[in-house]
Amino acid sequence: MTVVKSTIPEAARQVTGDALQSTLVDLLGLSLIGKQAHWNVVGPRFRSIHLQLDEVVTAARDFADTVAERSSALGLPPDGRPETVASAFTLPGPKEGWVRDSEVVGLMVESLEAAIARLRERIEATESADPVTQDLLISITAELEKQRWMFDAENWPRED
Amino acid sequence: MTVVKSTIPEAARQVTGDALQSTLVDLLGLSLIGKQAHWNVVGPRFRSIHLQLDEVVTAARDFADTVAERSSALGLPPDGRPETVASAFTLPGPKEGWVRDSEVVGLMVESLEAAIARLRERIEATESADPVTQDLLISITAELEKQRWMFDAENWPRED
Amino acid sequence: MTVVKSTIPEAARQVTGDALQSTLVDLLGLSLIGKQAHWNVVGPRFRSIHLQLDEVVTAARDFADTVAERSSALGLPPDGRPETVASAFTLPGPKEGWVRDSEVVGLMVESLEAAIARLRERIEATESADPVTQDLLISITAELEKQRWMFDAENWPRED
Amino acid sequence: MTVVKSTIPEAARQVTGDALQSTLVDLLGLSLIGKQAHWNVVGPRFRSIHLQLDEVVTAARDFADTVAERSSALGLPPDGRPETVASAFTLPGPKEGWVRDSEVVGLMVESLEAAIARLRERIEATESADPVTQDLLISITAELEKQRWMFDAENWPRED
Amino acid sequence: MTVVKSTIPEAARQVTGDALQSTLVDLLGLSLIGKQAHWNVVGPRFRSIHLQLDEVVTAARDFADTVAERSSALGLPPDGRPETVASAFTLPGPKEGWVRDSEVVGLMVESLEAAIARLRERIEATESADPVTQDLLISITAELEKQRWMFDAENWPRED
Amino acid sequence: MTVVKSTIPEAARQVTGDALQSTLVDLLGLSLIGKQAHWNVVGPRFRSIHLQLDEVVTAARDFADTVAERSSALGLPPDGRPETVASAFTLPGPKEGWVRDSEVVGLMVESLEAAIARLRERIEATESADPVTQDLLISITAELEKQRWMFDAENWPRED
Amino acid sequence: MTVVKSTIPEAARQVTGDALQSTLVDLLGLSLIGKQAHWNVVGPRFRSIHLQLDEVVTAARDFADTVAERSSALGLPPDGRPETVASAFTLPGPKEGWVRDSEVVGLMVESLEAAIARLRERIEATESADPVTQDLLISITAELEKQRWMFDAENWPRED
Amino acid sequence: MTVVKSTIPEAARQVTGDALQSTLVDLLGLSLIGKQAHWNVVGPRFRSIHLQLDEVVTAARDFADTVAERSSALGLPPDGRPETVASAFTLPGPKEGWVRDSEVVGLMVESLEAAIARLRERIEATESADPVTQDLLISITAELEKQRWMFDAENWPRED
Amino acid sequence: MTVVKSTIPEAARQVTGDALQSTLVDLLGLSLIGKQAHWNVVGPRFRSIHLQLDEVVTAARDFADTVAERSSALGLPPDGRPETVASAFTLPGPKEGWVRDSEVVGLMVESLEAAIARLRERIEATESADPVTQDLLISITAELEKQRWMFDAENWPRED
Amino acid sequence: MTVVKSTIPEAARQVTGDALQSTLVDLLGLSLIGKQAHWNVVGPRFRSIHLQLDEVVTAARDFADTVAERSSALGLPPDGRPETVASAFTLPGPKEGWVRDSEVVGLMVESLEAAIARLRERIEATESADPVTQDLLISITAELEKQRWMFDAENWPRED
Amino acid sequence: MTVVKSTIPEAARQVTGDALQSTLVDLLGLSLIGKQAHWNVVGPRFRSIHLQLDEVVTAARDFADTVAERSSALGLPPDGRPETVASAFTLPGPKEGWVRDSEVVGLMVESLEAAIARLRERIEATESADPVTQDLLISITAELEKQRWMFDAENWPRED
Amino acid sequence: MTVVKSTIPEAARQVTGDALQSTLVDLLGLSLIGKQAHWNVVGPRFRSIHLQLDEVVTAARDFADTVAERSSALGLPPDGRPETVASAFTLPGPKEGWVRDSEVVGLMVESLEAAIARLRERIEATESADPVTQDLLISITAELEKQRWMFDAENWPRED
Repeated sequence: MTVVKSTIPEAARQVTGDALQSTLVDLLGLSLIGKQAHWNVVGPRFRSIHLQLDEVVTAARDFADTVAERSSALGLPPDGRPETVASAFTLPGPKEGWVRDSEVVGLMVESLEAAIARLRERIEATESADPVTQDLLISITAELEKQRWMFDAENWPRED
Repeated sequence: MTVVKSTIPEAARQVTGDALQSTLVDLLGLSLIGKQAHWNVVGPRFRSIHLQLDEVVTAARDFADTVAERSSALGLPPDGRPETVASAFTLPGPKEGWVRDSEVVGLMVESLEAAIARLRERIEATESADPVTQDLLISITAELEKQRWMFDAENWPRED
Repeated sequence: MTVVKSTIPEAARQVTGDALQSTLVDLLGLSLIGKQAHWNVVGPRFRSIHLQLDEVVTAARDFADTVAERSSALGLPPDGRPETVASAFTLPGPKEGWVRDSEVVGLMVESLEAAIARLRERIEATESADPVTQDLLISITAELEKQRWMFDAENWPRED
Repeated sequence: MTVVKSTIPEAARQVTGDALQSTLVDLLGLSLIGKQAHWNVVGPRFRSIHLQLDEVVTAARDFADTVAERSSALGLPPDGRPETVASAFTLPGPKEGWVRDSEVVGLMVESLEAAIARLRERIEATESADPVTQDLLISITAELEKQRWMFDAENWPRED
Repeated sequence: MTVVKSTIPEAARQVTGDALQSTLVDLLGLSLIGKQAHWNVVGPRFRSIHLQLDEVVTAARDFADTVAERSSALGLPPDGRPETVASAFTLPGPKEGWVRDSEVVGLMVESLEAAIARLRERIEATESADPVTQDLLISITAELEKQRWMFDAENWPRED
Repeated sequence: MTVVKSTIPEAARQVTGDALQSTLVDLLGLSLIGKQAHWNVVGPRFRSIHLQLDEVVTAARDFADTVAERSSALGLPPDGRPETVASAFTLPGPKEGWVRDSEVVGLMVESLEAAIARLRERIEATESADPVTQDLLISITAELEKQRWMFDAENWPRED
Repeated sequence: MTVVKSTIPEAARQVTGDALQSTLVDLLGLSLIGKQAHWNVVGPRFRSIHLQLDEVVTAARDFADTVAERSSALGLPPDGRPETVASAFTLPGPKEGWVRDSEVVGLMVESLEAAIARLRERIEATESADPVTQDLLISITAELEKQRWMFDAENWPRED
Repeated sequence: MTVVKSTIPEAARQVTGDALQSTLVDLLGLSLIGKQAHWNVVGPRFRSIHLQLDEVVTAARDFADTVAERSSALGLPPDGRPETVASAFTLPGPKEGWVRDSEVVGLMVESLEAAIARLRERIEATESADPVTQDLLISITAELEKQRWMFDAENWPRED
Repeated sequence: MTVVKSTIPEAARQVTGDALQSTLVDLLGLSLIGKQAHWNVVGPRFRSIHLQLDEVVTAARDFADTVAERSSALGLPPDGRPETVASAFTLPGPKEGWVRDSEVVGLMVESLEAAIARLRERIEATESADPVTQDLLISITAELEKQRWMFDAENWPRED
Repeated sequence: MTVVKSTIPEAARQVTGDALQSTLVDLLGLSLIGKQAHWNVVGPRFRSIHLQLDEVVTAARDFADTVAERSSALGLPPDGRPETVASAFTLPGPKEGWVRDSEVVGLMVESLEAAIARLRERIEATESADPVTQDLLISITAELEKQRWMFDAENWPRED
Repeated sequence: MTVVKSTIPEAARQVTGDALQSTLVDLLGLSLIGKQAHWNVVGPRFRSIHLQLDEVVTAARDFADTVAERSSALGLPPDGRPETVASAFTLPGPKEGWVRDSEVVGLMVESLEAAIARLRERIEATESADPVTQDLLISITAELEKQRWMFDAENWPRED
Repeated sequence: MTVVKSTIPEAARQVTGDALQSTLVDLLGLSLIGKQAHWNVVGPRFRSIHLQLDEVVTAARDFADTVAERSSALGLPPDGRPETVASAFTLPGPKEGWVRDSEVVGLMVESLEAAIARLRERIEATESADPVTQDLLISITAELEKQRWMFDAENWPRED
């Protein structure tokens, strides 16, 4: 017996469920590496970046909640357990220990860029499957692209 | 060259650092499994427990931040990356998929109980090493014991 | 002479106007039956459901206002008079008198499910007619699907 | 078996219940026609009246809730379902479509006047039956008489 | 020499003073047993009832303050000392130790019912003596009857 | 032609109108003499009384507004012009210049006492004429009696 | 013996005191006639002007308080008693009874204009006597000139 | 070397960039002419329209900021300098000097209508280029269409 | 079967439970006598002390709640029923009737002093038994010592 | 026929009107170039300067509104249309495209410096013409000088 | 090379700088002696004066910040270091240890009086040098004169 | 005769009093040098450090108040007069005039480090003398160590 019923057809639900589950992992992962950098950043720009990272973390946590609840609303139990996040998360993040401020900035640009690329694929994938989910993914992308720009703007002139 | 200097002696710092790092993992883990249960709980008590879990998550996230920043303040870079949390987290949590409300309640009692037992050991361990850290661990214990009681009170009459 | 002019072509306006008018009726109806259940629910889960129903009512009222003003903005006078709501409203609702809590939960699942099915049809219908209206219908669907899930989650194990 | 018990004698409860039920219908009806006019009003005084109507709606909704819960508190299940409101509501309201601003003003004066006359009868009827309910009806009358005055003041010089 | 003078005649003051003093004891007693139940309730509905009881306590405390200050305003020093409350309080309350949730609900229905019956007598008694005090007693009754209904609604189906 | 129509019969309106107009003058007068004392009080209790007087002024102003609008709502234009207040105001107030703190306290007791006596007469006078107005006068009396008690309590031991 | 001492020389104090006392009367008078018009205005623009008048009243009351306290601060007891206001107030105000909206607008333009002319004289008079008082009079003038403009703007095309 | 990198392909970026840049100019222009009318409007409806215009200005400013930052986020530096706005802005606006209230209303209807027509073209143009930008343009259109309706509603009966 | 389990060993729990139960009685008793004095104080310092007592009451109520919930959290049902408070409360309090302001001040110094002495013993007693409870008792002592100082400071020069 | 009348003599009005009109242009221009820099700044100090610029923009917008309304209050219609701002604005601003952070800082110092110099001339010019306007110009200067200092402080050591 | 440039001529800057630096010392000194009295006052008026002193401290701190930043804005580094305050501060303040309430009141009158006299000299001195600074000094004087009055009013009848 | 009595034995009071008095001086000193740096810092990191210093100042001021009131509560009059702070303050602070941003950062690390070392000694010293005071010192240390870390983190790579 189905526990929570769905309001969209089975096929659509599969596509949508995959998009939501992988977005959930990306967002929970981002919230963890954002906090990791928030605590470990050092360098003259410490305070500015320390604060900026908390905005990424807040956005990531809030969207993670909405994404997971959207998955539940479609009858698909979301999975955000520590082991799931650790094994499924693929975005670049800081290594152990203190990290230089400029390095954090570069890292966040990269990590957000990767998250955005994956989101844009899911926007396409869900277009016909579920416009309601697509609309949510569009909102997340708008926010992450804004965050990415702000790190990119302060990443200039780039050292590479 | 030391990046962030410490304000307590090396030996004390080691003890304190261990206590803080393992507390950080417990709290981040709790915040993840609390959200997992928040999204996947089903049963007639859904709404009540759904809301109660968010209070645990909020407390766990806030304390995790304080604990990690306390570690940084002592010159010890905290580690809260996904892979660290996943491998070091030992408290019981929900399995994949929907979970019955009464099961969630029992699980939270167990998980908070385990976290509290570990915290009480660290309270003792840090007493002479760093009373400032000890005071923080005492606050965390007070909150988690309150949360544990509330789940335990609604866990009665227990089915075992 | 046209009273309020439209910003979209006549054909598009007809489709959009129909979608908005029937959504308005559904939302006003939902707000009335939500309150009816809020006042008449009895049983051990009274308080939890009493509060939950007010969230549905608030959402329904707010969206009803936005939907009706969108209709006006397109030059189509919306109709939300008592007689119109009574005759055009087709979603299931509570009968007269006290209602058992579990019955309310089942009823809200059904009623929201019916509302959502109708909204999903209108999302398709308005896609080319007016993407601005479509976007509004998508937001309403997201909210109602979330509300539906929460009632469905506490509707388990179902008695049927 | 009585579901919710009453705190007043049966005879008193009948009188009070009738007063509350018909007041509930008047207030829910007022909230619907107030919104109807809020959306459909046109003319140079549009903005002023559009805002003023929302104050009537807010008052009507808040009092409807208090009235219905008072009925429940006396052990009488209130009835605010769409079909009940439509069939029992007798106050004048706007017809379908756009309405001229001056017409709305005149209509609100009339409709509030009718509501007040009915309330004043119920204040008398409940005086000995239930002073607690009477006190609530007095508060509602005070508010509706204030709203009526404000529409009447801007209805001058009257066109009749 | 009179300390605080009265604004009503002596006879009226006696009747009113008695009504206020016994209402004060009932409200202070309610606030204490409400908290007692808030702390000692156990069972699956713990959280819901734990929160609901705090609303009773807040109402009881706020009204107790108004009642006592009304007594002072009439030149009659109110008495809310521990020994007075303990000896004069006659409403039923929880016994020592943990209390089952359903038992708390039944108890609150009984206790509020007794308080309301006593208030309704005082409303009559003060009608000619002091309409200002009567108006206050009417407000208290309205609130306690609302609270009583909510416990009664979740007390159903009653086990008796 | 009547400008603003009334909702009560002519005879009742006369009684009620008189009660409201004289209450309006008392309240506007109180707000002016309260401010006068607020600015001119001297003595060791300056700060305490300076603040307390502003609470009287705020209450007087708020009630004056409600009273005047109630009069308008009954179709009777209220009169609160400077010359009307000056000629119709009969309560005792401070004379010109600095006033000793203890004198202000005694004066406020007297002035509020006179206002209350007049209000209690109007409560009786309006009982059958208009229970809605009576209810407002009861609220004003409750507040002024509370203010009077507080001045009386600090007026002790009285110097007379 | 001086009660409250002054911080400016006697001559300066006289000039400043006169300026403050007459400003106080103008502001208290404005607050009374503003409210009078607020309650008695009728006509299609009722609501707009009713609200606008309250902004004048609020400004007049707040400035009256500051002006009176400034007088006290200079050791000059201010006089704002009903009889003083009535006899010293010279600005035009509404006559008894209902007033047509357009008439109110014209009246406020006139009354504010007169108040401003008097303030501009006092600004000059206090320039060398007390720049602190002058600065306060400048702030009052700025606000009243803004209010005057808004009434004047809606007074157009003028009927004269 | 690119300063801020883009997350969408070059062709898409060109289309999107054009849509955003011209929307930015329209919104900044609207905020300037909205304020111009806010300051210069005269006539009996002054206050109502004065306030309404500020809502248009606030909306225009907030959306201008979001639009410009979206452009930056896509690696395209937005241009909102005075000379750019002046030369590129094509919507109708008020001429120099005082403007009659009814004229302002007609002007805002026209100007918003023109802005909406241009936005609807850009919604189509960006659909495949960038759904994230399209979603933003849809939100802006929804708001401007609501504002347009409100001016149009009070523009009736039109003088043409 | 244990209802709520404990997180500390039995012996520690006994000591801690006793400390918490007697602290609970002291705080509930303080809140009652604080209110008693708040209502019955007379004399020139009435207003100042009336307000100050409410701060004691608020602190006492808030800490009572925390103390009782801490007891529950340790598996020990707290007892705050009227009869328990009356029989176990040993701190000095006001006698029946009006109390002179200076007497209230002396009384609060004494009563808080006694409460503090008892708390300091419990701080010692719980040090090894439960540092979490000890930390709570320390916070309560800090607050009550602050309150005691403020009464003591205004108790000078003492009449003894 | 004059539309809005003035409260100061013609000659004074001319001088004041010129001062206000050119200040309006400077402030609207500053708000536009401040936003331009807010969107286009790049470099390691991006976030800090991005936020700082918004404070300049907010101040400029708020003062522009006050300045324009002051002009209206004096009967002089202000001109803040796009073409007026573009042609009359003479302060230095950023060129098109991305701008390096240090360049933005230097630019803001220069632009604010120029604005301040012009304001100081107008402060002198309006001294005898209109002290009310002069007071407003003084407030604007105080704020812009504070903003200028903060940019100048972070402009050091200057590269020139 | 100048670090922060000035916007006023050198001579004016010297005069203004001196006025600001000595005002800064007076305000920081006042904030320290205000707190000293806040902590050490004893006597029956303790609470009233304890609270009143905090208003002086808050005002002094806020103005000190504005004054120091104004100095920086003029290119003159302000000096508020402990040793500077101690050596340059000349206003009377409390001696070590507890201070009787009446003594504190007298002391604050004296100290504020001295501060005001010095401010009035600086208002004159800066009139032509910098009207912006003068305006700030006028605001500070207004506030300190208000504070002084309130202490003086409660200093009466003076013991001298 | 003792003015304010103590709640701890004489010996304990001496130790505690010394700890509190020297902590008070450190905190008041820190608040003054924090503000000094806040006003005088220059360099590209100006804004970030300017804001960060205000957080130190706020924390120092708030803790200074708590520390001084704790001293009073123990019957020991605290001493925070300008001359006491100047002579007893020993932490390093900025010299006169502008200070480079990097220098401020280094200075704050040093100054906070010294303050923390002194606090840690006092935590030990008060452990048996007064655990309530010790708990306060622990809280202060936690906050200052957090502030120190944040300056240290942005002090890297250190120039030494």
